[in-house]
Amino acid sequence: MLFSWQQRASIHGSDCDLSCFCQMASSNIRYGEGVSREIGMDLQNLGARNVCLMTDRNLSHLPPVKAVLESLSKNGVKYKVYDNVRVEPTDTSFKEAISFAKKDSFDVFVAVGGGSVIDTCKAANLYACHPDADFLDFVNAPIGKGKPVTGALKPLIAVPTTAGTGSETTGVAIFDYEPLKAKTGIASRAIRPTLGIVDPTHTLSMPERVTANSGFDVLCHALESYTALPYNQRSPCPPNPINRPAYQGSNPISDVWSRHALNVVAKYMKRAVRDPEDLEARSSMHLASVFAGIGFGNAGVHLCHGMSYPIAGNVKTHSAMGYNVDHPLVPHGLSVVLTSPAVFNFTAPMCPERHLDAAEILGADIRQVKRADAGAVLADTLRQFLFELQVEDGLRAVGYNDDDIPALVKGTIPQERVTKLSPREHTEEDLTELFAASMKLY
Amino acid sequence: MLFSWQQRASIHGSDCDLSCFCQMASSNIRYGEGVSREIGMDLQNLGARNVCLMTDRNLSHLPPVKAVLESLSKNGVKYKVYDNVRVEPTDTSFKEAISFAKKDSFDVFVAVGGGSVIDTCKAANLYACHPDADFLDFVNAPIGKGKPVTGALKPLIAVPTTAGTGSETTGVAIFDYEPLKAKTGIASRAIRPTLGIVDPTHTLSMPERVTANSGFDVLCHALESYTALPYNQRSPCPPNPINRPAYQGSNPISDVWSRHALNVVAKYMKRAVRDPEDLEARSSMHLASVFAGIGFGNAGVHLCHGMSYPIAGNVKTHSAMGYNVDHPLVPHGLSVVLTSPAVFNFTAPMCPERHLDAAEILGADIRQVKRADAGAVLADTLRQFLFELQVEDGLRAVGYNDDDIPALVKGTIPQERVTKLSPREHTEEDLTELFAASMKLY
Ligand SMILES: NC(=O)c1ccc[n+]([C@@H]2O[C@H](COP(=O)([O-])OP(=O)(O)OC[C@H]3O[C@@H](n4cnc5c(N)ncnc54)[C@H](O)[C@@H]3O)[C@@H](O)[C@H]2O)c1
Ligand SMILES: NC(=O)c1ccc[n+]([C@@H]2O[C@H](COP(=O)([O-])OP(=O)(O)OC[C@H]3O[C@@H](n4cnc5c(N)ncnc54)[C@H](O)[C@@H]3O)[C@@H](O)[C@H]2O)c1
Ligand SMILES: [Fe+2]
Ligand SMILES: [Fe+2]
Repeated sequence: MLFSWQQRASIHGSDCDLSCFCQMASSNIRYGEGVSREIGMDLQNLGARNVCLMTDRNLSHLPPVKAVLESLSKNGVKYKVYDNVRVEPTDTSFKEAISFAKKDSFDVFVAVGGGSVIDTCKAANLYACHPDADFLDFVNAPIGKGKPVTGALKPLIAVPTTAGTGSETTGVAIFDYEPLKAKTGIASRAIRPTLGIVDPTHTLSMPERVTANSGFDVLCHALESYTALPYNQRSPCPPNPINRPAYQGSNPISDVWSRHALNVVAKYMKRAVRDPEDLEARSSMHLASVFAGIGFGNAGVHLCHGMSYPIAGNVKTHSAMGYNVDHPLVPHGLSVVLTSPAVFNFTAPMCPERHLDAAEILGADIRQVKRADAGAVLADTLRQFLFELQVEDGLRAVGYNDDDIPALVKGTIPQERVTKLSPREHTEEDLTELFAASMKLY
Repeated sequence: MLFSWQQRASIHGSDCDLSCFCQMASSNIRYGEGVSREIGMDLQNLGARNVCLMTDRNLSHLPPVKAVLESLSKNGVKYKVYDNVRVEPTDTSFKEAISFAKKDSFDVFVAVGGGSVIDTCKAANLYACHPDADFLDFVNAPIGKGKPVTGALKPLIAVPTTAGTGSETTGVAIFDYEPLKAKTGIASRAIRPTLGIVDPTHTLSMPERVTANSGFDVLCHALESYTALPYNQRSPCPPNPINRPAYQGSNPISDVWSRHALNVVAKYMKRAVRDPEDLEARSSMHLASVFAGIGFGNAGVHLCHGMSYPIAGNVKTHSAMGYNVDHPLVPHGLSVVLTSPAVFNFTAPMCPERHLDAAEILGADIRQVKRADAGAVLADTLRQFLFELQVEDGLRAVGYNDDDIPALVKGTIPQERVTKLSPREHTEEDLTELFAASMKLY
């Protein structure tokens, strides 16, 4: 039997004794064409004497890194470059970056790249400032120990070069934990960047598929946070505010961010993917990734992200189109979006208005649509959107078949930190069906 | 000759070499019915041993203060109460609060009240932590020295009881500088509260006129920040990012906040004023004050606020309806809103679309309206709005006449920090006409 949000509340009362939500301060964000040319001055202002600049090997030769290095040189800032970040990092690649950071005494960290670089840099800063900590200490439970971070970290400036993760705004660092073949992460306000420098000219060099996949990440951050369990329905609600989770469910403030990001995606994403020179569209998507980052950083994401972690972690031989890397890969945005039609079809009965709302923003004509069809309509709208952007036809097209479903379900279970924000409760059978329904899209 | 935003940019190029804007982290905000009952735990979490609680005499007997004190007692938090805050504070009243704060060694500050209380508490914290500073050191230039704050302050928790100033989100403290009969303030990120606890039940005890006037403050924060000079038009643009002002002009992020706040005002403000028990409407306005606070905290306000400071400062005998105070007073929200029809009629030619947009959100039918009439339409819409909420009929009704205009103009000149964000440049003659046009509204 299915209860909608409203019904659940009227049957059980609110799960929380207290219906509250927070707008946690996000990172400071500076946005503008060319703003990364100022970073040398920012580092001087911070009194930096020995900067650790992290990036990945592909980016190390591209304009974003060049612009930052020039500004450092011009302002006489001393730095060392680590360009060995793995695209879609793992515990091993995190540890390599951490040992680089530990070997020297850096006083500021700078990350120039996509989510992979920014997340790696967050972890390097964290463990370099806690040299005695065990790697699993700060990793989310149940995989890690989920210990709170108590010491102070060095300032970290994040310069995102994709329009996707919003990692410049969040206190989250994601990696693939190889022993379990599943992604997990570190979540603490302490690792949130001090400043995000969002320079849209950096997105001009993004290959078409990186633009598409990181854009899907924005789309899912917006859709999932907008449909996440409302803040006044989540449970348990720890009585002491200090113990409340960062992901607190959808709320009137995160709704503003999520809806706004969704509007921008609807208006600009296709243009941004198709025309690498469309600066207006790419700039808009860059800003949308910030909006969606602040939105999901407060509200949380749910099933698409929870299920994406084993999809990325169990990759066999799929090589990602347009990615300049030497290992098999299902890029994060792709791993997230492939289940989205099935997921939102499943969650719609709990809050059909929001699903219809989202479908309408994405271009569907919902005037004649019944609430009962909200899920089907949003799913169709998403499939159409993916088809027009030439997305691989479902999980099968990235190398999975029905035999893999039990492993995918098993890998989703430990992602409770996010999946519990799904507006609809779900069993292992539900997850099985969601993966099965995502094998083929068109 | 009048150039619109677009024309100015195409004629002069952008004033800034760099078109950038920042979303500065606002305070952490916690919102929910009853959340102020948790404050004792927050103070324990902060390790507070000796709390300075500030409020005003009227509030000291009302439910918001009672709820907070109960929570402190329940959690065994030691505190002292200062309830001598002046409604619409002055340099003298700030100094009294400062000397109270200096006499003891407080480790956390708590402000329970409207903008008057929160601003006073910010100043008390600032100067108690800088015991050797002269009062004018941190006051905005040209009245004060505008020195940057370098030392660390104690944590400050703001519990707003009006739905108005958004002071719980900003690094601003406003007071009336009696020697000049004009309001000025202190603006520094250092005085921004650590946490804002926004408990909408606190607004239920607000008298009708306090609800109206503080709501007008929200309205003007939203309208002024939405129409403020765009971030890429302001000048000069200090090359070093550290020297850029907090008020940076309207930008795509502040626009989201401002427009959203305006929508809430349009939907709920009349209900909130008319029915003190309409918790939905009062809660919505309480949240709108936060939204508008974050919006104007980043973008700035302009002429209504700049001109309001001498309107409040030169008050003669006007006693504010519904305010339980023993001195003449033009409440802040009223002093701001009385010039709004004239101001937006004046600024409309620079960005008619935004003025029409605002008029439409506030209920005007703009389908047949020409761009050239944007100012007149928004002005009429505002006059109608004020009339329905039974606002005093212009500056004349609060005690001014034409002879006062030179003094009002003179008091506006030093408010350049805000007035320079007006989208339209203005002379002293322009200000004279704006005050004259605001003498009578209906
Ligand atoms: N921390 C968070 O809040 C968060 C949120 C979502 C996802 N993530 C994580 O972020 C990672 C994905 O990050 P991503 O999608 O930003 O991509 P990415 O960092 O993995 O980069 C993808 C590829 O694009 C290239 N690239 C990046 N910017 C480029 C540019 N401007 N020009 C040319 N090439 C460019 C990179 O070199 C790389 O080959 C995943 O590990 C994911 O789990 C983190
Ligand atoms: N710091 C900022 O960012 C900022 C912004 C705008 C205005 N301000 C300043 O804030 C001040 C105005 O603050 P305000 O409009 O919030 O009002 P206020 O603090 O001056 O309070 C007005 C009156 O309402 C009473 N009151 C407040 N809350 C009540 C409640 N819940 N129940 C019953 N009575 C209540 C007070 O006792 C007082 O008599 C002005 O000095 C203004 O310049 C500051
Ligand atoms: Fe993501
Ligand atoms: Fe104000």
